[in-house]
Amino acid sequence: MSRNLLLISTSTTHGTGYLEHAETEIKELLKGKSSILFIPYARPNGISHKDYTAKAREAFEKWGISVTGVHEYDNPVKAVQEAEAVFIGGGNTFLLLKQLYANKLVDPLKERARKGMPYIGTSAGTNVAGKTIGTTNDMPIVHPKTLDALELVPFNINPHYLDPLPDSTHMGESRETRILEFHGHNRQPVVGLREGSMLRVESDKIRLLGPLTARVFLQGQKPMEFAPSDDITFLLEAY
Amino acid sequence: MSRNLLLISTSTTHGTGYLEHAETEIKELLKGKSSILFIPYARPNGISHKDYTAKAREAFEKWGISVTGVHEYDNPVKAVQEAEAVFIGGGNTFLLLKQLYANKLVDPLKERARKGMPYIGTSAGTNVAGKTIGTTNDMPIVHPKTLDALELVPFNINPHYLDPLPDSTHMGESRETRILEFHGHNRQPVVGLREGSMLRVESDKIRLLGPLTARVFLQGQKPMEFAPSDDITFLLEAY
Repeated sequence: MSRNLLLISTSTTHGTGYLEHAETEIKELLKGKSSILFIPYARPNGISHKDYTAKAREAFEKWGISVTGVHEYDNPVKAVQEAEAVFIGGGNTFLLLKQLYANKLVDPLKERARKGMPYIGTSAGTNVAGKTIGTTNDMPIVHPKTLDALELVPFNINPHYLDPLPDSTHMGESRETRILEFHGHNRQPVVGLREGSMLRVESDKIRLLGPLTARVFLQGQKPMEFAPSDDITFLLEAY
Repeated sequence: MSRNLLLISTSTTHGTGYLEHAETEIKELLKGKSSILFIPYARPNGISHKDYTAKAREAFEKWGISVTGVHEYDNPVKAVQEAEAVFIGGGNTFLLLKQLYANKLVDPLKERARKGMPYIGTSAGTNVAGKTIGTTNDMPIVHPKTLDALELVPFNINPHYLDPLPDSTHMGESRETRILEFHGHNRQPVVGLREGSMLRVESDKIRLLGPLTARVFLQGQKPMEFAPSDDITFLLEAY
């Protein structure tokens, strides 16, 4: 598979501007391209497609990349088929996936991204690149017909991965507990991607980028920590 | 509607034992009853139905109430139809709702609870008493065919309601933001029920119990805080 993916945990880390912390990696991914198709369906804070696209445009234009929003096209399928690159932004993962199916973009996105079209995801856009959205942190504000996602990688991602807060008195489940529960019903590995972390996938190579380690959950095994220098190729192999 | 419900945000508050903080209210609800049917489907931490039922049994037996688990019956529908009272415990709300549908318990539970059978929910068990589970905090580890729930009340509940942490550097959405996004796609009111809070519904009367206020979200309006002494009857009226 000729993949060319940049899967980012969060668009904005604490104290940096929109996409700023991933600037080097985004520029490297888009070398030689002059445009990107933005998919604003996840609508963080309920922002409109237009306003969300304007936000993405502002960031990419500084880097010499022009941005169009997929909602601006009469034929969104054709827009995906002809895009130089695609960026799916964060927001609500359920809403995003439902809209991807409603607009029949799941198959075209799979096809293009598996043939090497550069794909950038942040948060929800990273989530949908995985096998399913079953490890999203979001609220199910709408009900997609399935949780099956783009499966550009054969594992699930948990963006904004959060370690347990040692002094919390809140009785909700920790992220780790939730993922262990997920593995009571699903086989695929889960990568807990902390804010500031990214996965860079080039064909059959995968690297963890950013300053932090990632927490990897395999069904029936103790969670493991991997550093950016570690070999995590096994994640791309069948499980 | 002859309802008799106790909808508890969390089974266990910080520093108290299982169900302890709701002991007075549970005893009042079950006055004159000697048994309760426990529905362990939500399986917190992936605990077995048997072990989860043992935990509930330990709590209720101290109060002179015998507990059976619905999984112990060959005919779970009949078990619901004949129960003196029902308790649905917390865990994963998606798994709980999926199992309620799989075992055909949604309609029998609705019917019994709307005719006055005492119903206790904690966390996920409180969530499913609402109109939909669209305001759960849980991870979608399985995919129920619908988010429509028991609708014992005409609003949604967000258990374990959490105020924004003022000093957090984490970029995930606040609970309030998520609920405002929910209202971009759904009309029904949402009650954010903090840990330690409970809703007591008797026919067409509703009271907030516990030491804290609850945060109430109506579509298109600013969130409101209601204290236990406030009249919140409007929540039971059509919206």
